[in-house]
Amino acid sequence: MAIRFAATVAYDGSGFAGSQRQPEARTVQEELETAAKSLFGVTTRVDLAGRTDSGVHATGQVGAFTAETRLDAETVGKALNAHLAEDVSVRDVRQVAEDFDPRRHAVRRWYRYIVLNTQSRMPLERGTTWHVTGDVDVDRMDDAAQALVGEHDFRALTGPLEEGRSSIRTVFQAGWSREDCRLVFDIQANAFLQRMVRRIVGALMQVGRGSMTKEEFVQALQTAEADSMGPSAPAHGLSLQQVWYDERDLT
Amino acid sequence: MAIRFAATVAYDGSGFAGSQRQPEARTVQEELETAAKSLFGVTTRVDLAGRTDSGVHATGQVGAFTAETRLDAETVGKALNAHLAEDVSVRDVRQVAEDFDPRRHAVRRWYRYIVLNTQSRMPLERGTTWHVTGDVDVDRMDDAAQALVGEHDFRALTGPLEEGRSSIRTVFQAGWSREDCRLVFDIQANAFLQRMVRRIVGALMQVGRGSMTKEEFVQALQTAEADSMGPSAPAHGLSLQQVWYDERDLT
Repeated sequence: MAIRFAATVAYDGSGFAGSQRQPEARTVQEELETAAKSLFGVTTRVDLAGRTDSGVHATGQVGAFTAETRLDAETVGKALNAHLAEDVSVRDVRQVAEDFDPRRHAVRRWYRYIVLNTQSRMPLERGTTWHVTGDVDVDRMDDAAQALVGEHDFRALTGPLEEGRSSIRTVFQAGWSREDCRLVFDIQANAFLQRMVRRIVGALMQVGRGSMTKEEFVQALQTAEADSMGPSAPAHGLSLQQVWYDERDLT
Repeated sequence: MAIRFAATVAYDGSGFAGSQRQPEARTVQEELETAAKSLFGVTTRVDLAGRTDSGVHATGQVGAFTAETRLDAETVGKALNAHLAEDVSVRDVRQVAEDFDPRRHAVRRWYRYIVLNTQSRMPLERGTTWHVTGDVDVDRMDDAAQALVGEHDFRALTGPLEEGRSSIRTVFQAGWSREDCRLVFDIQANAFLQRMVRRIVGALMQVGRGSMTKEEFVQALQTAEADSMGPSAPAHGLSLQQVWYDERDLT
């Protein structure tokens, strides 16, 4: 009997050209599908909740796949891990409804971005933080970030949109906090546009360093033009932390 | 005029065959000496406070060097960093006394070891933690660790000693704590024997997993034989956090 499984997936994005399968590049999806094929003996498609760009990490990506197997969910998880490279792992594998779609059924996603605000580099954190020197006003960034909360058209925070695609998203919460020399940005929304979090972080860092006011940030947000926010923050500071579902879509 | 500088040195040990210079291997000392030679134009010896094994990290190693320069300490630090690879950096460079010896003058050293105690692997932490599955009793490990505190002969925790070398060291404090799924071991002593911390962690993990009692650990400690503690914990969970000096040796 075919059983559908959902797995929490963690990866170090450094070695991947993003999450989505693409020709001639190492991707998270391909890595998972290769492991699933080794385990189940047949080509197995793995659907992912969120598209993460090249270099972006995850501790709580969600992947779903259907397999003819008598193994229970926990054993499937252990066996998959044995087939996966050391920079990706699955955890908390569980059986879900036959029609579970990790992308369409997701109701909330949480991304975290970490800025390392020290005078000199920290080698052990070079793969997971964006190193920024000088004074940064985190309170000002946190204050400006509140303008993101609610249902808005986030066209200013993404690249050109395909015809007919909406750029309206609902941000449930967004905020900056300082933990020693680390500035941590957490944002939760129903869904995100491509590069949206990195563009937000890039713009809010300008606010924190005093080269953009809160008012200019809010005004830029309301611009109807794509890409009006300036440069994105680098990919390696970003991580997909968690994805939430309604219980009724899981079971 | 020749000026002596001391620098706090941080590195990701993954790419180094340890801290001490050795032929045909990439070491932290060689990396620092090469950067210093580029900056000052002449061969410059860099002395380090602690010898760390291949794969061991540092956030607070201390290096000292003497140079004929008119640059102030802060500028020396920035310039050295510009010459260093991304897996090593210097910070807090300061001028010290001409005869400052980072190894002989050190009065206290702090090492930290991190065990990741989760069912499945965590890719982003694979280079900085030892992944251990199953139940671990941290309280029992912390209790047994108290036997290390004080002045003891730690012969059981190192390899064969050179003739005439003492294996007596003074441990000021040692303890385990749990931070979510991470078991953190902090130990401070006047000095350490080779592999001492990794052997302690290896033995205490046996205590935590129930395959060694506290009494057996204490008895093994008192054994006069080198190497009687069993296998060492892997290098990549270990980091040299900080080294302390008396003010009179610095100035």
